[in-house]
Amino acid sequence: MASDMAIESIEKLTTQLARLPGIGRKTAQRLAYHILSVQKEQATELADAILAAREKVHPCPVCGAFTDLETCELCSDPKRTDAVLCVVSDARDVLSMEKTREFHGRYHVLNGSLSPMNGIGPGALRINALLERCKTGTVKEVILATNPDVEGEATASYIAKLLKPLGVTTSRIAHGIPIGGNLEYTDEVTLAKALEGRRIL
Amino acid sequence: MASDMAIESIEKLTTQLARLPGIGRKTAQRLAYHILSVQKEQATELADAILAAREKVHPCPVCGAFTDLETCELCSDPKRTDAVLCVVSDARDVLSMEKTREFHGRYHVLNGSLSPMNGIGPGALRINALLERCKTGTVKEVILATNPDVEGEATASYIAKLLKPLGVTTSRIAHGIPIGGNLEYTDEVTLAKALEGRRIL
Repeated sequence: MASDMAIESIEKLTTQLARLPGIGRKTAQRLAYHILSVQKEQATELADAILAAREKVHPCPVCGAFTDLETCELCSDPKRTDAVLCVVSDARDVLSMEKTREFHGRYHVLNGSLSPMNGIGPGALRINALLERCKTGTVKEVILATNPDVEGEATASYIAKLLKPLGVTTSRIAHGIPIGGNLEYTDEVTLAKALEGRRIL
Repeated sequence: MASDMAIESIEKLTTQLARLPGIGRKTAQRLAYHILSVQKEQATELADAILAAREKVHPCPVCGAFTDLETCELCSDPKRTDAVLCVVSDARDVLSMEKTREFHGRYHVLNGSLSPMNGIGPGALRINALLERCKTGTVKEVILATNPDVEGEATASYIAKLLKPLGVTTSRIAHGIPIGGNLEYTDEVTLAKALEGRRIL
């Protein structure tokens, strides 16, 4: 007994929960015990929601975002323009962009950022699919909306280089001080970017 | 579309994940998208682990800790003494106590702490079951190992009062400076408790 008195099915549940991002062993254990404490229906609902989501949702064959339709709503919406393509690293980023209500083009999800340190090269991302979409001639501008970190910047400049010969305008989302931000508390790199990206009024 | 482009099954999964303790809406969404991104087997394993745990594990009818046996291993272990009973708030606390390898008695899980603010009175806890166990005469000492917070202290002193007429020795786990701790960084309440609980060398 003693410290290895672990009950097998609690152990298994903890292990599975600990595979989720940002969930350490201790948190996983807390969650496992919570799942055992709640009404059985709640636990079943959670398990069913996981299975149902995996059953119904798949990546859209065009943009790569998740959808429960054959082609996602954003790709099949006739009111959106095909001329502008917004490239994001992650399917979740599409949600963030949509929340702005300012973008009315199409999306392209890369499924990650270039990260040679982690063995993620161009082949692991949906870059070829992006080039194919751009070769049709309908796309006039590609907005590179990868994250403003080292990997996101590298990915953006890598893609920009590939798109240049195709004659597609390539743009990068602006870096600067966030709205509600404060000069005093803004790091110097962001501030330098804000200065560099200044606009004439 | 726009910000409410949410896909129903992702939405449902996010809602279920957000019901877990310490998981906010944003984290739940991140986890949901992770579950959609991983190999289908991994998602199924998680769902199965939840269902299996709920199927196999139940509270031990004696101590209230979780078990996959009829009576838990700790309650049925003949090498442990029935004379000492360790009272904890949560089933997880049994694991923590067992890790010390210093306690060889039995456990009693209360399933919470007294918290009048949250409507948790003595009736909601396994206090009556504790009194029944103590009335048999085999229990000589009850160690109150509830958390050293307001609710845990209140629970401990409430139970101590109930046990007094039964002639059972009642003890409380010691409060003080944790091992590896530092006087300078110890809060004054803990330091006062450490002083109060000093031992003659």
